[in-house]
Amino acid sequence: MSEQHELTGSRRDIWWDTYSDRADNLRESEVRSLFSVVSRPEVVSLAGGMPNIKDLPLDRLAASASELIAKHGMQALQYGAGRGWDPLREQICEIMSLEGIKADYENVVITTGSQQAVDLMTQIFVNPGDVILCEAPSYLGSLGIFGAYQAEVVHVEMDHEGLLPDELEDTIKRVRSQGGNIKFLYTIPNFHNPAGVTQSMERRQAIVDICRRERILILEDNPYGLLGFHGQTMPALQSLNPEGVVYLGSFSKMFAPGFRIGWALAPHAIRDKLIMANESVVLSPSMMGQMMIHTYLRDFDWLGQVTTYRSMYHERAKAMLDSLEQYLPACEWTVPDGGFYTWVKLPAGLDAKDMLPRAVTEMVAYVSGTAFYANERGRDHLRLSYCFPPPEEIREGVRRLSRVVNKEIELVKLFQPGSAN
Amino acid sequence: MSEQHELTGSRRDIWWDTYSDRADNLRESEVRSLFSVVSRPEVVSLAGGMPNIKDLPLDRLAASASELIAKHGMQALQYGAGRGWDPLREQICEIMSLEGIKADYENVVITTGSQQAVDLMTQIFVNPGDVILCEAPSYLGSLGIFGAYQAEVVHVEMDHEGLLPDELEDTIKRVRSQGGNIKFLYTIPNFHNPAGVTQSMERRQAIVDICRRERILILEDNPYGLLGFHGQTMPALQSLNPEGVVYLGSFSKMFAPGFRIGWALAPHAIRDKLIMANESVVLSPSMMGQMMIHTYLRDFDWLGQVTTYRSMYHERAKAMLDSLEQYLPACEWTVPDGGFYTWVKLPAGLDAKDMLPRAVTEMVAYVSGTAFYANERGRDHLRLSYCFPPPEEIREGVRRLSRVVNKEIELVKLFQPGSAN
Repeated sequence: MSEQHELTGSRRDIWWDTYSDRADNLRESEVRSLFSVVSRPEVVSLAGGMPNIKDLPLDRLAASASELIAKHGMQALQYGAGRGWDPLREQICEIMSLEGIKADYENVVITTGSQQAVDLMTQIFVNPGDVILCEAPSYLGSLGIFGAYQAEVVHVEMDHEGLLPDELEDTIKRVRSQGGNIKFLYTIPNFHNPAGVTQSMERRQAIVDICRRERILILEDNPYGLLGFHGQTMPALQSLNPEGVVYLGSFSKMFAPGFRIGWALAPHAIRDKLIMANESVVLSPSMMGQMMIHTYLRDFDWLGQVTTYRSMYHERAKAMLDSLEQYLPACEWTVPDGGFYTWVKLPAGLDAKDMLPRAVTEMVAYVSGTAFYANERGRDHLRLSYCFPPPEEIREGVRRLSRVVNKEIELVKLFQPGSAN
Repeated sequence: MSEQHELTGSRRDIWWDTYSDRADNLRESEVRSLFSVVSRPEVVSLAGGMPNIKDLPLDRLAASASELIAKHGMQALQYGAGRGWDPLREQICEIMSLEGIKADYENVVITTGSQQAVDLMTQIFVNPGDVILCEAPSYLGSLGIFGAYQAEVVHVEMDHEGLLPDELEDTIKRVRSQGGNIKFLYTIPNFHNPAGVTQSMERRQAIVDICRRERILILEDNPYGLLGFHGQTMPALQSLNPEGVVYLGSFSKMFAPGFRIGWALAPHAIRDKLIMANESVVLSPSMMGQMMIHTYLRDFDWLGQVTTYRSMYHERAKAMLDSLEQYLPACEWTVPDGGFYTWVKLPAGLDAKDMLPRAVTEMVAYVSGTAFYANERGRDHLRLSYCFPPPEEIREGVRRLSRVVNKEIELVKLFQPGSAN
């Protein structure tokens, strides 16, 4: 127990010494702690991952919700089953078939956003000290969950085609030779958050083969899979080895996040445990949310809406990449084919975390690369998102960022060894 | 590892040896495993705890949902804050003021049903082996959560005025003398599930005083507090010691469960941890659900609706109690002043768990008392709920149950020692 903790505790919190080990591992995310600053309207936020839902047909959705409650309110406003509502589970199988998945709806578990599915998977697999393999970098929300369960996160290097199979093999060997107990590989194959890259087909096959051979479960997190800028979709890892992969999907990006409805597709024994864990935590997912989404998928041109989203995000990605080219030639960045993000490497000597307060002073925000690692890495990178602000704001944001970066470069030069000469 | 586990595992589940200790502690609840049988229309279910929402004004709710999406869809369909939406947090404070609570909305955390709040509280306080004090009997959903976190549940006896203070003191002493680490007392003061009793005012004060003196946090679970048959409300334990109590509330019984929206009111340091844990698991509670409830509380006579619910449940409780009097004089039962349940003691020698299949054959279902204990107790009790079926069905259900019970009594007599004489 640190002195500071005791002091804080004795002064303000009479329960300070009664929390669980897990509570000590909860951290406010770097994104959340910035929230109050970043949400000021004068700041251009290239930080958040909020989807832009401005093109949704609100009037038709309003009519649809009204009809749902008037006709099926007794069901929509009641408890449901812990596994989720069967008609929606069946529709989810149709959606996943776009990525080559042949699923039985009985193996789909509906969750309160796919984030909760990551939590349930960690619950049912991870004891404190167990190892989870993650890409380097990886999604900050999942890293937060893994940390809360006291997992040891081991990062595996990636390049512009995603996770590196050789690195995966080496890491598995190394971890096991040190006695580590690997519970699963957590991977985001499409339009990676934050790295902005997509696994090639060869890469997918290699990763699946290694994990099958080494008997390592894969947790495939795929919120952005349908948001390829050219309408392209890649076969899910799940389709390459259904018994070895738990696949997570979400309606937050292909429709809207406000219902908090996501899902897991799992081999049946894992599915049973996921359902029990889900019932334990929330009894059942929201019937209202599930039935709204069911109606949307049934009565609306949902794939047309996805196409609209794709064009919008593509336009914004172009604005982002063009501005980077124009204003930040000293940096390097990944070129996304879909999704929300690009991963920017700063010039040598710059520190994304230290620079952030100065960026906010210049009225632009990003997420420091450090948020995407479980260890101390990432200071040389930052994540820029282009999903929410319109193109002209994105350009203005990158312009402001370039002022900050250029000032930092000057400072680094000044304080370089020998710079006084 | 049991042989059976290995066998099952090796045959069906290639991941059988990789689950966490926690997964091994997940159990399908006794209620869920009955679900498929009990939901057959010919069975009178006195088992479930589903609220009866038939009196909700669906047409007006439909119009309200429509207006919400048309006017505020961009907010309702988007992510929100992990702590919940401030306007709803403020309304929740007004609701709680009916029970003498003076709360700051900043200390309210919105959760995915109050069930999830129990989960979050267990997460942030309980390490495996820690002790949670619960009433004897206690709510099966919470016992499931406590078990999943590998807590040791110690039951404290109650009578018709709820938890017994002397028993509480003795239990605390005993647990501590055995080295047990008590994390909190979990209690349902109003219209207890399953016991059907309510803590008297003296009892509340005594319980709060003991816990304050012994420095034990109280987790006050109050889903039924507004459903007193005579409109009576009791001061919440929270109102007697705000720094020593975390209070849980729910919209599932006073409005409708379909949104899965509940809340926790907590001292501010605990609140901070609850918010971090909530963000970690679900990012944010559903904005759609929160805004629907906000609109309902603002535009509808929600307290009038609660009054309607009270009369309906009161009528059903009377039907239940009258039928018990008429058909089951050999049993004893508690007389609820509100809520959904009565707790029935079987005649000596009868076993509620063994009897259940025979009851289902007679087309009536209940929950065996064993579901409400973490240990092997409860075979001499069963829970009857009167919330969902109409009065005539309740009467028919109790009549069917009496046939089963009377047969069992005959059997017990036959096999009693000396009965052959």
